[in-house]
Amino acid sequence: MMETELEKTTKLYEGKAKELWETSDDSLLISYFKDDITAGNGDKKDSMLRKGILNQNICTTIYEYLNECDLVTHSIRSAGPREQVVKKLKIIPVEVIVRNFAAGSICKRYNLEKGYKFKTPLLELFYKDDSLNDPLVVKDLVIEMGWASAFELAEISRQAHVINQKMIYFWQQYGIQLVDQKFEFGIDNDSNIMLGDEITPDTQRLWNKDGESLDKDIFREGNNLDQVQSVYQYISDLVCK
Amino acid sequence: MMETELEKTTKLYEGKAKELWETSDDSLLISYFKDDITAGNGDKKDSMLRKGILNQNICTTIYEYLNECDLVTHSIRSAGPREQVVKKLKIIPVEVIVRNFAAGSICKRYNLEKGYKFKTPLLELFYKDDSLNDPLVVKDLVIEMGWASAFELAEISRQAHVINQKMIYFWQQYGIQLVDQKFEFGIDNDSNIMLGDEITPDTQRLWNKDGESLDKDIFREGNNLDQVQSVYQYISDLVCK
Repeated sequence: MMETELEKTTKLYEGKAKELWETSDDSLLISYFKDDITAGNGDKKDSMLRKGILNQNICTTIYEYLNECDLVTHSIRSAGPREQVVKKLKIIPVEVIVRNFAAGSICKRYNLEKGYKFKTPLLELFYKDDSLNDPLVVKDLVIEMGWASAFELAEISRQAHVINQKMIYFWQQYGIQLVDQKFEFGIDNDSNIMLGDEITPDTQRLWNKDGESLDKDIFREGNNLDQVQSVYQYISDLVCK
Repeated sequence: MMETELEKTTKLYEGKAKELWETSDDSLLISYFKDDITAGNGDKKDSMLRKGILNQNICTTIYEYLNECDLVTHSIRSAGPREQVVKKLKIIPVEVIVRNFAAGSICKRYNLEKGYKFKTPLLELFYKDDSLNDPLVVKDLVIEMGWASAFELAEISRQAHVINQKMIYFWQQYGIQLVDQKFEFGIDNDSNIMLGDEITPDTQRLWNKDGESLDKDIFREGNNLDQVQSVYQYISDLVCK
C-alpha cells in the first residue's frame, strides 16, 4: 500500500525521550525518538548514540504485535528510522504501571524483595506531573479530580492488564521475563480510549534467565553508555525482523 | 457498676504519644497517654504539659459517643487521668485516612488547594511502617502482601466512612469542621474487626468557622507550646462534660 508522505508542521511537545509533531493530517502526529536517555525524573541525563533509532525499531515491532493481537493502539506505522506516525490523542494524565515482579521504586517504598513475584499482576496509578515527581494516587482521587472518569479508569485498567498478558507472552518467546511496564493512555477524536506513548526498554523492565537487566536499569545503575547501547542493540536485533 | 481494679503488668509497646500495657486480664490493655507531641514521623518532637491528660479526656468522650452510636470499638472505659482500658487487638498494619477537605500532605503531593472540599470523602491507605515513613499504598498490594485480607479491607473502609460521618456530626455541634482523620483498626480475640488507637486532635484535623486550626497543625506550624496547649485545652473543655 502506498502511503502519502506526511509532513511535520509544528512541534507540539518535547519530552525527555521524544518529540511530538503535528502534521498535515489533523488526526495524526509524528513521534520523533531522540537519543536522550534520562532516569530519576530527569535527574540523571545523557545522550546515547542511535538510541532513538533502536527504540523506534523496538517500539514499532511491539506495536505491530499488539495491533496483530487486535488491540487498538495509537500506532499507525513507522515513518523512517526515528519516526512513527501515531493517532493524535488527548492523553489521560495518569500513568499506569503493571508489575509482574517487584523491582525499582516499589522495593524501596515498601521494603519488598527485588524479584518478588506478584500472585496477581499489580496495577498502580501515578498522577502524571513532572513537577510533583509523578506521585502514586488512589483511584478515588483520580475520579474526584476529573483526571479520568470512573469508566475511563476501569477501561485503562482492563486494557493495561490485557496488554501486560500479551507482552509477557511476547517476551517469553525470547526467554525474557517482563518485570514491569509503564503505560499511558489517551482518547482519540472518536472517543476511543487506547494505548499511547512508547513501549521500549525505557518503559519496560526486562530480565534474562539469569535475572540480568535488559532495559534502562543498565543506565540507572551507572553503567557506561557503551554497555547501555549494547543492551538496546541486543533487544532491537532480537525482536526486529 | 463497680469496676474491678485492673493492674498494669508489662509494657507491650511504646509509641510516639502512648504506651500500651498488658494487664491482669488477658483480653484487656491499658493505654497510657504521654505528654510527648511529635510531627513529621517524629522529626519534630517536644513535651507538652498535661497533653496526655487532655488527650485522654477528649479520646474517652469521643469513644463514648461512638459507642453510643452502636459502633463497636476497642474502648472500654477511662481508667484515670491518663489511662484508658481498651480491648487487646491484633492491629492491622494499614492506616486509614479519610479526608473531607484537602489539607497537609495531600496538598503538596498533588498540588491541591488547602481547603478543597471533596465531593465524596476520600479514603487513602498507608502501610504502617515508621522506617518507611508510612507510604501510601493501593488496596491490591495490601491484599497481595497479606497486610489485610480483601474482606478486612472492605470492612475497615466501610467502618472508616461510617465513623467519619458520625464524627462530622459530632464536631458540627460545636461549630467545628472535621477536615480529615487517621484511623487504625484491629481484630479482637473473637475475630471482630474494630476501631483501635486514639481519636484526638493528634489524629484529626479540626477547623473553626474562620478556618483556624484546632489540632496538631498548631504544633506542626511552629507555634509555641503554650499556644498548642491552649488549643488542646479548648477542645477538651468543649467536648468533656
